[in-house]
Amino acid sequence: MARFAAAREWGQYHTPKNLAAALSVEASELLEIFQWLTPEQAAAVMDDPDSAFRVRDEVADVLAYTLQLCEVLGIDALEALAAKIDRNERRFPAGPYPLDR
Amino acid sequence: MARFAAAREWGQYHTPKNLAAALSVEASELLEIFQWLTPEQAAAVMDDPDSAFRVRDEVADVLAYTLQLCEVLGIDALEALAAKIDRNERRFPAGPYPLDR
Amino acid sequence: MARFAAAREWGQYHTPKNLAAALSVEASELLEIFQWLTPEQAAAVMDDPDSAFRVRDEVADVLAYTLQLCEVLGIDALEALAAKIDRNERRFPAGPYPLDR
Amino acid sequence: MARFAAAREWGQYHTPKNLAAALSVEASELLEIFQWLTPEQAAAVMDDPDSAFRVRDEVADVLAYTLQLCEVLGIDALEALAAKIDRNERRFPAGPYPLDR
Repeated sequence: MARFAAAREWGQYHTPKNLAAALSVEASELLEIFQWLTPEQAAAVMDDPDSAFRVRDEVADVLAYTLQLCEVLGIDALEALAAKIDRNERRFPAGPYPLDR
Repeated sequence: MARFAAAREWGQYHTPKNLAAALSVEASELLEIFQWLTPEQAAAVMDDPDSAFRVRDEVADVLAYTLQLCEVLGIDALEALAAKIDRNERRFPAGPYPLDR
Repeated sequence: MARFAAAREWGQYHTPKNLAAALSVEASELLEIFQWLTPEQAAAVMDDPDSAFRVRDEVADVLAYTLQLCEVLGIDALEALAAKIDRNERRFPAGPYPLDR
Repeated sequence: MARFAAAREWGQYHTPKNLAAALSVEASELLEIFQWLTPEQAAAVMDDPDSAFRVRDEVADVLAYTLQLCEVLGIDALEALAAKIDRNERRFPAGPYPLDR
């Protein structure tokens, strides 16, 4: 992705602030697919080839901007995720738990 | 993460629609860090330990919900990303390019 | 609100781009209240005084940033809304209708 | 808008949770217009008739879903806004102020 952006001279647009905005826009495009669906319809979203394609496409956009933001900010994405999982293990001891994050 | 959620009986909350909403909420919490910053201040966000921690923490939340959504929908995240990169290679031939996606 | 922002010298932060980002962040904070609720729990959200307060507070933030964005861009909010309702009347003739916007 | 939705039998979709999701999606569509613009380009967004139309159109969608959410939850939008302005007057006394909300 870094090579892809460089070959198109998109680095000038890919500032941290712009990438954070673009990531939140893509996450909303993913949510848009689900917004009017009942929980049951939402659970069956991958059964229809067209919506399955849209979901995969938007998931890819979210991942792409997340990783590009990590690239420009020097963040190791998997290390950040592992550290967060450790913090959550301490914050929410195992056992049935009302979800309130 | 799947084991973490199961141990707390959070599977009942982790429907596709709820996870898509939670992902967009976390992406906005990441954007919130940047919302009042100038482009220059945003580029220096990792120089301050406190904001660097917040950025890493929110990036981890975004990744966590993206991967959990992939888990419940049976999506291979890296395959979805690779397919999107291929489509973008065809859609935007290399060369300087006004970004308009 | 314009006087309130001017008295605190916040005009420098209230650029169109920043206000659009802040508005989307506030809309996500409103969504956050609902993200793990079932449709039934969500419909009863105003029965609990604490969540009723939070919902009203986030609705106010959304309205405040929407109106401040209109102020800095010279948009008449009610005129924009009336024009959109007219377009929707033509786009979606009355009658039962699968919602697909 | 209430009559418009009723005539199309959209009330079934207009649950509080769905409207909160739709509102956040529309706020992101508004942000999308600004996401790659420099602060200077963003400030001039109303000079181009096409982008001016898009901005007005998305502002209208944000307002429409905000008001429809207020309708289904029994919230008086202007009263919520006035109460918030009062709280902010006490929270942020007048005077130059680093914006940190």
